[in-house]
Amino acid sequence: MATAAGTDIYTIMRNLRWSATEKSIARKAFEDALETELQSTVAEFKSRAGRAKHASELWEIEVWLAERRKEINEKYDYRYSVLPMVFGRLINEDRIQEDQLRGLRTDKLELIRRIAAF
Amino acid sequence: MATAAGTDIYTIMRNLRWSATEKSIARKAFEDALETELQSTVAEFKSRAGRAKHASELWEIEVWLAERRKEINEKYDYRYSVLPMVFGRLINEDRIQEDQLRGLRTDKLELIRRIAAF
Repeated sequence: MATAAGTDIYTIMRNLRWSATEKSIARKAFEDALETELQSTVAEFKSRAGRAKHASELWEIEVWLAERRKEINEKYDYRYSVLPMVFGRLINEDRIQEDQLRGLRTDKLELIRRIAAF
Repeated sequence: MATAAGTDIYTIMRNLRWSATEKSIARKAFEDALETELQSTVAEFKSRAGRAKHASELWEIEVWLAERRKEINEKYDYRYSVLPMVFGRLINEDRIQEDQLRGLRTDKLELIRRIAAF
């Protein structure tokens, strides 16, 4: 994704400065979304485990667990240099509401919105 | 493991000839032990899954499942060239009773017994 000025989004994200207040808002939104996603993964796991009757289903659950773990690890990357992209995705997936990010500077919110819509 | 005559056990196993009746006995004992082990794995999995509360426990179960799958795959190797060793181990682990192998020729039974005791 390139801006009108031709600066790529990674450079823009790297150049953002986060105040202590913004970091605190970001951290809370991030942790809340992660906790919710982990809990829903536990719930789905228990449902799958409850239905399993044969060992072949266990190996399917093993593959599913590995995929979930990998996806969650990749998605929840708390580095400020990529955080707008993380939040954009989480908003796009309806895991974070924009309200939770209220208090971030407009430049960040606009960037996050653009990524969410991308 | 070498015999008194110096012939190694892999050569001895490879040189065994299995009659149709012996193959049928072997197949049944093998499948019964495998089915029992798979069922007990399913039961233990359900118990672990039922106790799990946090995602970290899911990833522990994922590791456990991978180990169980690998161990079962390695243990239940139905090739006649290694079958006495497989049965020796299964008897040693109390997963097969010698009775289930009744009908195999004495040379095979003695070999299996020696491996079980090893």
